[in-house]
Amino acid sequence: MSIQAEDTIVALATPVGAGAIGVIRLSGPDAIKITNKVFKGKDLEDQDSHTVHFGTIRDGDLIIDEVLVSLFVAPKSYTKENIVEISCHGSSYIIESIIKLMIKNGARGAKPGEFTLRAFLNGGLDLSQAEAVADLIASSSETSHQLAMKQMRGGFSHELKNLRDQLIHFASMIELELDFSEEDVEFANRDQLKQLILDIQKVLDKLIISFDQGNVLKNGVPVVIAGKPNVGKSTLLNALLNEERAIVSDIAGTTRDTIEDEINVKGVIFRFIDTAGIRETEDVIEAKGVERTLEKIKQARLLVYLSDPMQDDFAAVKEQLEEVRNYQIPYLLVVNKKDLLSREQFDAYSALDPLFISAKNNDGVEELKDRLLEIVNLANLNSEDVMVSNIRHVEALQKTSEALIRVLYGIDNPVASDFLAMDIRQSLYHLGEITGEVTTDDLLDNIFSKFCIGK
Amino acid sequence: MSIQAEDTIVALATPVGAGAIGVIRLSGPDAIKITNKVFKGKDLEDQDSHTVHFGTIRDGDLIIDEVLVSLFVAPKSYTKENIVEISCHGSSYIIESIIKLMIKNGARGAKPGEFTLRAFLNGGLDLSQAEAVADLIASSSETSHQLAMKQMRGGFSHELKNLRDQLIHFASMIELELDFSEEDVEFANRDQLKQLILDIQKVLDKLIISFDQGNVLKNGVPVVIAGKPNVGKSTLLNALLNEERAIVSDIAGTTRDTIEDEINVKGVIFRFIDTAGIRETEDVIEAKGVERTLEKIKQARLLVYLSDPMQDDFAAVKEQLEEVRNYQIPYLLVVNKKDLLSREQFDAYSALDPLFISAKNNDGVEELKDRLLEIVNLANLNSEDVMVSNIRHVEALQKTSEALIRVLYGIDNPVASDFLAMDIRQSLYHLGEITGEVTTDDLLDNIFSKFCIGK
Repeated sequence: MSIQAEDTIVALATPVGAGAIGVIRLSGPDAIKITNKVFKGKDLEDQDSHTVHFGTIRDGDLIIDEVLVSLFVAPKSYTKENIVEISCHGSSYIIESIIKLMIKNGARGAKPGEFTLRAFLNGGLDLSQAEAVADLIASSSETSHQLAMKQMRGGFSHELKNLRDQLIHFASMIELELDFSEEDVEFANRDQLKQLILDIQKVLDKLIISFDQGNVLKNGVPVVIAGKPNVGKSTLLNALLNEERAIVSDIAGTTRDTIEDEINVKGVIFRFIDTAGIRETEDVIEAKGVERTLEKIKQARLLVYLSDPMQDDFAAVKEQLEEVRNYQIPYLLVVNKKDLLSREQFDAYSALDPLFISAKNNDGVEELKDRLLEIVNLANLNSEDVMVSNIRHVEALQKTSEALIRVLYGIDNPVASDFLAMDIRQSLYHLGEITGEVTTDDLLDNIFSKFCIGK
Repeated sequence: MSIQAEDTIVALATPVGAGAIGVIRLSGPDAIKITNKVFKGKDLEDQDSHTVHFGTIRDGDLIIDEVLVSLFVAPKSYTKENIVEISCHGSSYIIESIIKLMIKNGARGAKPGEFTLRAFLNGGLDLSQAEAVADLIASSSETSHQLAMKQMRGGFSHELKNLRDQLIHFASMIELELDFSEEDVEFANRDQLKQLILDIQKVLDKLIISFDQGNVLKNGVPVVIAGKPNVGKSTLLNALLNEERAIVSDIAGTTRDTIEDEINVKGVIFRFIDTAGIRETEDVIEAKGVERTLEKIKQARLLVYLSDPMQDDFAAVKEQLEEVRNYQIPYLLVVNKKDLLSREQFDAYSALDPLFISAKNNDGVEELKDRLLEIVNLANLNSEDVMVSNIRHVEALQKTSEALIRVLYGIDNPVASDFLAMDIRQSLYHLGEITGEVTTDDLLDNIFSKFCIGK
């Protein structure tokens, strides 16, 4: 399916903003030729792949910048085309000038994800790997990063390729039967086919189930903090978040784009659902606002119920926890102001297996994090398990599974081979959608338009 | 003055934020060795300078990223030390992880400007060139960019070096006289010395005067828009600014960090001074607020007086322009709402040589820009003239000049050779401060702390 592009694209590959350098990337048959026209230094067309050259970029006599130019000669590059990377001083004026100059000399501004699209079209990556590139760039925690890295390096694709190859074999056998349909032969052993499909279904089920966990790893564990007004929900959230900010800012030169309400506990992101309940109105789990809160709780994987024994009535807390149990999501009772607790209060609460903390004194916050991690039970992260984290993939897997169920029905019932073949082809089609053996322009547009420009 | 650093520094060289790639830079004796410890691919210590290598960065068994590593072997690098540039996926998680890993393996986080400081200390750049690197990165217009580029490429330094070499010659001659002071000889011809100093003074004066223009080119031409309330000052400003924004945003993938009140006219930045007069209180050139406005006008190089003939009384406008003349800065009368002017109004205003526009209809805005450019008369930008744009440089030039005036006095008056020698040394000292032949730690700290990290 390799379709060599005829034009050469150009884009800034590094972020816009204040930095020492910017990297401008060109890809296409004329990448080196176009750069050579405006580069004063060595003749770039005579240089080896994977070499770097110092020189100036000039527009006529005007020196735009002193730059380093890296050459990647097709097919030894990310896109499998000629790639040039120009490392210039990080001035927006210089970057704009160089991009304009390249366009004037025959390049075209790249669309979002167009470099990776070319890598896919030229066979450098399959589609799920290409999607993982975007996930990798967006990854903000160890687990989301590892998930994307595994996928980019093909773990997921290998698993699917295996299933697909076996199915293709049976599909051909059954299609062969169609050619001899007059003779009523069976090239494809129905028992073996059935066993294969059951095996495949097992793998599909495992992958589909893994989506729940994969999705959480990629997008964070949604958590709701509930409790009566003024029990210290904001203080608790800030105690959780502040520490994170401190960790984040201790490396010179990098600042993580901290999302306001996320914390990273040993590589797992916990994302606090921004309910009005947490920040503004404080009427969580009370008559008024219950509906909205319930809506939020449905999105959550975990509920933290915060109680302030100085304000809350123990009996009421117990009652509300009973209610929480109805929501059928894991919850944790956290009792604030542990330093002010009376013996009686301590004993009463202890029956409910709570965690005692003092959000104000930052006492017990670490333990709370550990408990959160325990409850979501994502401990097996370093396993070699392949996980699905992409909604598009899980949908394709589900459709594959549905088609295979029809095949199984067809085997056990008097269904003509051509219907059987059609259902197997259908399952192959959906499997192929994941890795890109089967694509449509709409699908590609949809996937690559979500990329940043320059990748 | 080359002082080889013993440690290896590391920093992100590209801006923080969303981008396809990030570039992490290491410089120092162990840059390649440290990278090699965590890189899986070719043995980097066996590779040539200016080559690029694909591989993975690993922390133990954990793959952090697939990267491209560029090698620059000392002294063939920006800092004259070993440099490694790691091009990784642009995820803040990945970038942090790699920097942490490098620090764990023996590198140290770089301070702002430390790469360029090393380039200076190792003789790769003189001090004024190093300062130009920061200016180049900050440049946002063609002229500020060209100014910085000339300075970085040494135009300014060459001019100074010339002066300095000649002075050094005379200083040695006069110091030689001191050794023979008993004998009352004159090795240094006083007439020649006087002529040289007069020649040098001419160059110094030219450079000092150029600062006025150089500074304006670097930092923009400050402009005040004056006029009675509600004559359309904001509309005019927006008409000027909006067009600029449109020009700026037409290149995919780059967005200039537009500063709210700047426009770029053919490469020259006009910076509208944010006076309360322009935006909020509208009582410019009226009894109240005159003092504050005068303060603003003193900072400006140009005043645009905007009149709305539908509101303004012609006689009053004329009177106010008389007053403006007292400020002794160039001004331009702009008459708004040209489409609504009566014949009489048109004739009356014409006597004042105004520019007629309609800010609302965007009519005459281009002409206004051309007139602004004409008035500041910065047409000779492509000349090869060396210009000073740095306040530190102009101060050192002034001190040089003052010391030389003392030398001139000493030649014409009965002043002992040792005083003469001291004053020449003093002028050499100040000249040397500019290019960095003379430095102090404070001076270096002051200069390089203004750099971004990673440069």
